[in-house]
Amino acid sequence: MPYIKLEEHLPGITGLLEYRQDSAAPIRELTQFLLRGPNTLTEGERELIATIVSSRNECKFCTAAHTAAADMLLGEQETSKKIKEDISTAPVTAKMKTLLTIAAQVQESGKSVTAESISKAKEAGATDIEIHDTVLIAALFCLYNRYVDGLATVTPTDPNFYQGLADRIVNNGYNRLKQGYDHLKK
Amino acid sequence: MPYIKLEEHLPGITGLLEYRQDSAAPIRELTQFLLRGPNTLTEGERELIATIVSSRNECKFCTAAHTAAADMLLGEQETSKKIKEDISTAPVTAKMKTLLTIAAQVQESGKSVTAESISKAKEAGATDIEIHDTVLIAALFCLYNRYVDGLATVTPTDPNFYQGLADRIVNNGYNRLKQGYDHLKK
Repeated sequence: MPYIKLEEHLPGITGLLEYRQDSAAPIRELTQFLLRGPNTLTEGERELIATIVSSRNECKFCTAAHTAAADMLLGEQETSKKIKEDISTAPVTAKMKTLLTIAAQVQESGKSVTAESISKAKEAGATDIEIHDTVLIAALFCLYNRYVDGLATVTPTDPNFYQGLADRIVNNGYNRLKQGYDHLKK
Repeated sequence: MPYIKLEEHLPGITGLLEYRQDSAAPIRELTQFLLRGPNTLTEGERELIATIVSSRNECKFCTAAHTAAADMLLGEQETSKKIKEDISTAPVTAKMKTLLTIAAQVQESGKSVTAESISKAKEAGATDIEIHDTVLIAALFCLYNRYVDGLATVTPTDPNFYQGLADRIVNNGYNRLKQGYDHLKK
């Protein structure tokens, strides 16, 4: 049961974003810009960054939601599975391997990001903005994961829930819809 | 030297917020709302939450900046020093001890926040919103600390720099000023 009183039909992050809409608005805006805004990284690649950080933070809700979103964007379920197992052998570009490695270091701590991993990213063609956005997306999911688990929100076990959520964030993005999350009500 | 090209006269978070203003705007807005918005926690108390998380993440820039801001708001330098040493004996209210404990747990991981620490906070009079805001402020500084250190930004050693920054965030808040950070130029 969540540590604070949230609407019962809204699990994970969804209840938190409805609970305090004044803080939710800039969180949504930041996420929309970083994950859906104009970028040389694809939306699928950016969802993979969200996925690996959430997975390493062991946040089940965020991992399931962003895995489902990445899978929907990539059109297959192999890549998200493989990056969680081993970045070095996952079926992503050489550049994405270096960026996912940086994201995994950010998950540990800002201080864990090494000059070596940055050099490898630049050698693989990553731009300053791509490195910046990778670090900030990873840091943002360190916020989300702590927010979701720190208040002990509910984690649905039904995969269909995450399919519905992925469909929403792939097709409508991270901005608030007029109906909130009423469409997720059973 | 920072891992990406930032303006040389802008150390720590200041260069990052100028580098990518589209992501900076919602980060500033979220921070302004949580740390300066209407709240039953004082601004000084909220800066103490920022301070303890930054300290435990060993982010020198953020620790120095928010320690200086807390000291300026509280009118003394003892409390910020003591909470970093030992929350249980620090000169803060019983409620703040429980909230700082929750913030310290969020710094470790969302999963580290225990039902026991939440119960203690509620017994000490903390409201749901105060618990929510404590968790979200702590999570936000887990973002900031990773952003600042993950890109290896510069950490000034001159205490006067942090006094100037504290003066700015105490008196003007976290919104962007028209002149950016030009006033910090030597």
